[in-house]
Amino acid sequence: MKETLVRRLKEVPLRDPIMVEGLPGVGHVGKLVADHIVEELKAEKIMEIYSPHFPPQVMVKEDGTVRQVRNEVYAYKGKDGEPDLLILVGDYQSATNEGHYELTGVFLDLAQEMGVKRIYTLGGYGIGQFVDKPTVLGAANDLALVEEMKGLGVVFQENEPGGGIVGVSGLLLGLGRLKEIDAVCLMGVTSGYLVDPKSAQEVLKVLSKALKVSVGMQALADRAKEMEKIISKLQEMEKAQMPYECAGGEEDLRYIG
Amino acid sequence: MKETLVRRLKEVPLRDPIMVEGLPGVGHVGKLVADHIVEELKAEKIMEIYSPHFPPQVMVKEDGTVRQVRNEVYAYKGKDGEPDLLILVGDYQSATNEGHYELTGVFLDLAQEMGVKRIYTLGGYGIGQFVDKPTVLGAANDLALVEEMKGLGVVFQENEPGGGIVGVSGLLLGLGRLKEIDAVCLMGVTSGYLVDPKSAQEVLKVLSKALKVSVGMQALADRAKEMEKIISKLQEMEKAQMPYECAGGEEDLRYIG
Amino acid sequence: MKETLVRRLKEVPLRDPIMVEGLPGVGHVGKLVADHIVEELKAEKIMEIYSPHFPPQVMVKEDGTVRQVRNEVYAYKGKDGEPDLLILVGDYQSATNEGHYELTGVFLDLAQEMGVKRIYTLGGYGIGQFVDKPTVLGAANDLALVEEMKGLGVVFQENEPGGGIVGVSGLLLGLGRLKEIDAVCLMGVTSGYLVDPKSAQEVLKVLSKALKVSVGMQALADRAKEMEKIISKLQEMEKAQMPYECAGGEEDLRYIG
Amino acid sequence: MKETLVRRLKEVPLRDPIMVEGLPGVGHVGKLVADHIVEELKAEKIMEIYSPHFPPQVMVKEDGTVRQVRNEVYAYKGKDGEPDLLILVGDYQSATNEGHYELTGVFLDLAQEMGVKRIYTLGGYGIGQFVDKPTVLGAANDLALVEEMKGLGVVFQENEPGGGIVGVSGLLLGLGRLKEIDAVCLMGVTSGYLVDPKSAQEVLKVLSKALKVSVGMQALADRAKEMEKIISKLQEMEKAQMPYECAGGEEDLRYIG
Repeated sequence: MKETLVRRLKEVPLRDPIMVEGLPGVGHVGKLVADHIVEELKAEKIMEIYSPHFPPQVMVKEDGTVRQVRNEVYAYKGKDGEPDLLILVGDYQSATNEGHYELTGVFLDLAQEMGVKRIYTLGGYGIGQFVDKPTVLGAANDLALVEEMKGLGVVFQENEPGGGIVGVSGLLLGLGRLKEIDAVCLMGVTSGYLVDPKSAQEVLKVLSKALKVSVGMQALADRAKEMEKIISKLQEMEKAQMPYECAGGEEDLRYIG
Repeated sequence: MKETLVRRLKEVPLRDPIMVEGLPGVGHVGKLVADHIVEELKAEKIMEIYSPHFPPQVMVKEDGTVRQVRNEVYAYKGKDGEPDLLILVGDYQSATNEGHYELTGVFLDLAQEMGVKRIYTLGGYGIGQFVDKPTVLGAANDLALVEEMKGLGVVFQENEPGGGIVGVSGLLLGLGRLKEIDAVCLMGVTSGYLVDPKSAQEVLKVLSKALKVSVGMQALADRAKEMEKIISKLQEMEKAQMPYECAGGEEDLRYIG
Repeated sequence: MKETLVRRLKEVPLRDPIMVEGLPGVGHVGKLVADHIVEELKAEKIMEIYSPHFPPQVMVKEDGTVRQVRNEVYAYKGKDGEPDLLILVGDYQSATNEGHYELTGVFLDLAQEMGVKRIYTLGGYGIGQFVDKPTVLGAANDLALVEEMKGLGVVFQENEPGGGIVGVSGLLLGLGRLKEIDAVCLMGVTSGYLVDPKSAQEVLKVLSKALKVSVGMQALADRAKEMEKIISKLQEMEKAQMPYECAGGEEDLRYIG
Repeated sequence: MKETLVRRLKEVPLRDPIMVEGLPGVGHVGKLVADHIVEELKAEKIMEIYSPHFPPQVMVKEDGTVRQVRNEVYAYKGKDGEPDLLILVGDYQSATNEGHYELTGVFLDLAQEMGVKRIYTLGGYGIGQFVDKPTVLGAANDLALVEEMKGLGVVFQENEPGGGIVGVSGLLLGLGRLKEIDAVCLMGVTSGYLVDPKSAQEVLKVLSKALKVSVGMQALADRAKEMEKIISKLQEMEKAQMPYECAGGEEDLRYIG
């Protein structure tokens, strides 16, 4: 296996579908949202994508069977005027720089083949401290799309994120432009220390309005509440330790969730 | 040499052979078992596999001659109702991520060509402390195979190993599924600090039952006893040092063997 | 996207153009000069170069839109006896060794196609301390070119830089020789700690004389003055701290600018 | 430039030439010997080899011109019964694992094309302390060759070097075997801390006998004497420091030369 392999499981006729990408990244915000949508909308898996650019690994499932790490594309046929959706989820992003380019190329070829005119990429924007008022930061590959997103409450800050957007969520915008596909990245502001379902909720609210698809929020709200409890506990512990060990705590928070 | 090269040494007609993989890994458990089987069954080398994904290195032998690092395939014609075997052994696994995918692809192509319907991959599962009661942990790419292995005493724990299975022992399961080849990974639980022939013995017992091939155990048992002595000595030394240097010892145990 | 992609935006007929390369590097000297020339001469963008060897990233612009990281080629039609120019600028050099070779190959193919007979590559030469009297160090792939540059005040020191010249500014000389294209690298001596517009000014002076193209200096002079102020402030701070923390300061100077 | 490029400068008819490889490595022993032979025998350069697997770099020469880093093949027409030689020298070995395999493949293809039946690869064997009595360690890809070399005073130690031989000096033996080319690696025992012309002298003595080509030694002897002086000085300094800083010195010895 030397090349990325797209395994097509099913033909589902879609009309001008919108693509939504949510692969693992900062705070797992994008992945939480996209996985949640797949589940809530009961979207149907139509493709599996395997690549030598993913880690050489299988995941072990509850029943003792394994699953090759991969990306997956799900299809959703819109009801009552809702648009059709293609949802891109998975275990990993590419483990190499070149792989990000190759895989994004594969995703955009699929998008073009399916008649996709717009892509939403989902991610987190880590700010290094706990977030009180969750917001959604945006960046797009088209000025009209920037304006449209502002209308939905998405925040656009000059030259923010300063370091640019790295990985597939960025490349789908940058390379998408070369193929004339409009694309916007919605980033939930998050500490970056923990899996953040609260930030994911905010992103989902915006995305749901943008797509004009109503998605149940409960599962994500439940996870957010659980995580809130964990954070409170961690913060208490941190306070309790503070006289002795000022700089502590933070290290312990990284990616529990 | 830019591509993986399969050098065929001999044609041996085999009937529905079962493939056994034992390349270097945690505690060298898989390698110990597979090398032992090759020797005990006097299996015949039929292929050498060279690859730019192996380290750029030759090994120096006792007589001053060298040998290019490689993987090898041995064939065993079963006697008295035993199945035929293909045994995959070698000096190294791939040194790169992409190489793991490429080499596993080569191994699976060979398996398909030879009519392999089932693969056993062998490895170790490091738990970071010395193991009192050796057990064999399993994962498979087919639910029926999970049940069958449970019948042989193999332990399947929910989502264990948590980090998945990395390397060729995992990929043969994951990518094997895409080619409709049943595969199971047998992992001897081991400290992970030392080459572990005792853990290898446990894996061999299970494998021998599963294959219905009887394999002499003595050589492995002898090595296990030797290693037991080394460990006892190390543990005594550790105790002796303890008042002075609590965290010692462990560092010294890594991969003596 | 598995290959470097040259996107041609416009055909501009040029006569024996001279190529000028200024990509990011030590002190951003080369980039400062080349970007400045593009702006001052109002050169026209004729190509964009995308590559999987660049970081997998988009830059976010002031208006909230993004831009895929890339290299760009600008064309300038010389006026009143000035030569025509091709100016190569961009966000990044290759992130991999092999990428440097591949991209330099692409640049040289373009140069050959456009009839380029001479290339100026621009860079900085970091000496690890603040520079009092700015000088321009040179290296060329042709002895006559060395002599010509000496006539313009460029300094050639035996075996200097001792570590050779790394990256596209070096490879355009080395691989350019194989295609019979004369090329010279002009390196502004700089601390290497900060973006250095003062060093860039010196390089621009030499380049402008060599090209016989007059380029306004004001914008670069303004930036140099600003940077001078920052450096004075940093040096004062450093002095103030010195009794307490001798080795300090330096760390703080790295790439502010 | 995506592929290794062999630039042929000249056709020199050779009869069954013997190949000698001396690229940079431990103590630069192999490079010292091969460069010395090229100079002493006034061998003629017939090929330059460029590769994206070398560092992306040019070297600056004394006159201010540059030279792309590369490997080179020199030819020597034997006189009075001497064999013809092909001598492989250069600035670097491959910077990547895969590159070692690719370049060795290129070297072996050239060897086969030129009718080479035997290869000598030259290197150093670092033992981590200063060497009193210099010896030459050997490894070969053919048992008869081992015996032949023993007759010339080359030492073969069981399974030594324990870590195998890494890089082109090893691969020419290992992959050479697959092409039925006899090859032996001669390793001068050296501290590994410094460029070691004394060890190179020992290797040259053996090689000269083996090739039945007489090579003047003076230049190498002169360099060895110079280095002896440097080492004596370093050892004195080390002694002088010892009461105060026991573990010192060694760090300072690394690769002066």
